[in-house]
Amino acid sequence: MKKILLASTSTVYGGTYLSYLQEELARFFKGINEIVFIPYARPSGISHDEYTEIAQKGFSSIGKKIIGLHSFENPEKALKEAKAIFTGGGNTFLLVTQLYKLNLMDTLREVVENGTPYMGTSAGSNIAGQTMQTTNDMPIIYPPSFKTLGLVPFNLNPHYLDPDPNSKHKGETRETRIKEFHKLNDIPVVGLREGSWICVEDNKIILKGDLTARIFLKNQEPKEVSELVF
Amino acid sequence: MKKILLASTSTVYGGTYLSYLQEELARFFKGINEIVFIPYARPSGISHDEYTEIAQKGFSSIGKKIIGLHSFENPEKALKEAKAIFTGGGNTFLLVTQLYKLNLMDTLREVVENGTPYMGTSAGSNIAGQTMQTTNDMPIIYPPSFKTLGLVPFNLNPHYLDPDPNSKHKGETRETRIKEFHKLNDIPVVGLREGSWICVEDNKIILKGDLTARIFLKNQEPKEVSELVF
Repeated sequence: MKKILLASTSTVYGGTYLSYLQEELARFFKGINEIVFIPYARPSGISHDEYTEIAQKGFSSIGKKIIGLHSFENPEKALKEAKAIFTGGGNTFLLVTQLYKLNLMDTLREVVENGTPYMGTSAGSNIAGQTMQTTNDMPIIYPPSFKTLGLVPFNLNPHYLDPDPNSKHKGETRETRIKEFHKLNDIPVVGLREGSWICVEDNKIILKGDLTARIFLKNQEPKEVSELVF
Repeated sequence: MKKILLASTSTVYGGTYLSYLQEELARFFKGINEIVFIPYARPSGISHDEYTEIAQKGFSSIGKKIIGLHSFENPEKALKEAKAIFTGGGNTFLLVTQLYKLNLMDTLREVVENGTPYMGTSAGSNIAGQTMQTTNDMPIIYPPSFKTLGLVPFNLNPHYLDPDPNSKHKGETRETRIKEFHKLNDIPVVGLREGSWICVEDNKIILKGDLTARIFLKNQEPKEVSELVF
């Protein structure tokens, strides 16, 4: 049975890396000492080693050891043998490109479908959706496909941002961008605000955190929900 | 000789479509009565016809006729025979996909290189760069390539936005995104603020409007400039 935690962000305003999620992480990873970390999204272009150190800091206080997937000679085998997997945020195009390049997308999907606990933040959550097409990131590299893990029956828009009524900026709002996505695609989109996360456990999809999520369906007005029904 | 006008946005805060550019457009398109409009970027998913109507309104007061490229039976021939070309904003992924699908990218490059005046706003400006990789848009469709017209020796980031010092949002700033681009790519990037535009005329690249532009070069600190030197 799938066990998945998808957070909008690793860090909320005023907090440190994963600080707001500590209690939930202790529960979610209970009984697991070692987590394989996928650092490929490289936020701000930091190295895999640097990123793995940051991830380790976020898990130290709950006593988990983090091992970067890049440090294994055979990453496919590492995923297959992992007790749990965490994919950090950064650039989704880079993350997806790297997963395809190393031929890991199918393996990652398989192990999570078969029950290996999976956690993602931001780009790491985005790839749990059907496609990466509702990312906010810049296309800094050309991936072989936009198709992602499809672990949940929707796409995610992490760091979902409401339109600012006082803004003088004329670039598209997040809502307009998702509306444009739905002119060409049918996949439901969950706009997940910072401080929210989704848990898939016992065949249920549960929205957690204090905030509502914004649901976008093709040809429908967006809805604010406190429960996810798919 | 190339003659190009690349605007960050079609509309500035408090204005109407192209209102802030009227004087410049009258000058830029002097002696030209008819402009071929490329509506493929479809902002908010509006139709090609609807978008062409909006473009026509923006040019009516200076007496120009706008004809949508989609209305020609042979769009390649239409580009070759155009007196001038204007590509509107919207979704860059959709615009680029459509140009490749209709096999128009090379023709568009050729005619502009050979002197057909070209104007772009937002996505229409972005495609004048070397690649579309510094767009802000969502990847709502998978283009055959990120390579674009390469009419200028840099990439553009239209609607460039400075970090908001009061923001509590933890998503990447525009500057961080462009920094991530430069971890993998060498192409200079011009962050073009709303209200700014670039003219390429007489072999000179000139920044216009009241604002400075922000220049990003690989491995260098970004710079504020009032002149573009490439």
